[in-house]
Amino acid sequence: MSLKLESPNNSNTSNQKEKHKPKPKRKPTTTMAPKTLNFITGNKNKLTEVKAILGSIVDLQSQALDLIEIQGTIEEISLDKCRRAAEAIKGPVLVEDTCLCFNALNELPGPYIKWFLQSLGHDGLNAMLAGFPDKSAQAVCTFAYSEGPGHEPIIFQGRTDGKIVPARGPANFGWDPIFEYESQTYAEMDKVAKNKISHRFRALEKLKAWLEESS
Amino acid sequence: MSLKLESPNNSNTSNQKEKHKPKPKRKPTTTMAPKTLNFITGNKNKLTEVKAILGSIVDLQSQALDLIEIQGTIEEISLDKCRRAAEAIKGPVLVEDTCLCFNALNELPGPYIKWFLQSLGHDGLNAMLAGFPDKSAQAVCTFAYSEGPGHEPIIFQGRTDGKIVPARGPANFGWDPIFEYESQTYAEMDKVAKNKISHRFRALEKLKAWLEESS
Repeated sequence: MSLKLESPNNSNTSNQKEKHKPKPKRKPTTTMAPKTLNFITGNKNKLTEVKAILGSIVDLQSQALDLIEIQGTIEEISLDKCRRAAEAIKGPVLVEDTCLCFNALNELPGPYIKWFLQSLGHDGLNAMLAGFPDKSAQAVCTFAYSEGPGHEPIIFQGRTDGKIVPARGPANFGWDPIFEYESQTYAEMDKVAKNKISHRFRALEKLKAWLEESS
Repeated sequence: MSLKLESPNNSNTSNQKEKHKPKPKRKPTTTMAPKTLNFITGNKNKLTEVKAILGSIVDLQSQALDLIEIQGTIEEISLDKCRRAAEAIKGPVLVEDTCLCFNALNELPGPYIKWFLQSLGHDGLNAMLAGFPDKSAQAVCTFAYSEGPGHEPIIFQGRTDGKIVPARGPANFGWDPIFEYESQTYAEMDKVAKNKISHRFRALEKLKAWLEESS
């Protein structure tokens, strides 16, 4: 799938139609840090985590939107979701996506991990790697920020290397029990320690630095 | 992901916004067989196959559109794609999706098979099943037809049972060499024989029967 740069307004536009249209002007890239930011999430834990890091530099509001997610690369999916959110909110938005990438599967399930976790559970995800000697994986967090409708989003991505192991630790948060960082799974780790190395923390640090520089 | 029934026009509409809007009227379901039908495909082989079966009862035109594909169930993805196509073409459209569902993975990779085939190839797809005793699979073809913008699409689906095996036969068409039906892979089968049992043939037979009944 090719990277689409049209605005969310034109998401139904066909290539065929585009042939007959004058070439659209390149849209302005988002460059301004906002004072208020709508974080699109229905997850209170994520909101708390993001507020803890960004709360001192931006007024973080949360909104739950039921946005479609397209198929594509991690970046294509985040950019598309951010454009749709900006269009729906009519203002500055922040969206977040979490992927679990198996290196033996060339980064898959990646953005499709939620479907695989839901269908297969922790044991099934381990079994998918039985035929591959390489059990290494990356936890990937991607934030995308847009100034508003028509502004190209900017991406801030954090990656944490680990490996897929049989589940250990409390099973109350997604795939945390099967992602091992050094000697502990995410689920086994102390929350403070986890938040210093997590994919989400690394992405948030980049976003924070950008907000500070651009404000 | 919940099934979205909004029209393609409203694909950016948020739930939040919908709460403040009057409940939309249920759209008419597509019930009329068309005289001319735009089959959305850039694949000449598919067009030939579909023309061979439907050509005598409908004037089949083909158009290539670069439509986004959402994440979701097989049916959600087909319905969404068909709505977008109808909106782009402004008339009756037929779209097609092919999935390869591994029973041990609860139908996955399913609609995501193209990403897995692209990343892992035939050997990798076999290796993904190494940890599961069940190698059975279903080839699934889903046609969705809409009378035009605002008309709910109808789905015609064909499924063929088989199993995943190490590649055998010419490797010039997708996952055909690793999908075994009875004793032969799709790639090894005589084309005429394959077209009598294939997932696409079965879906087309249903579509044909509907077109004949509704015209």
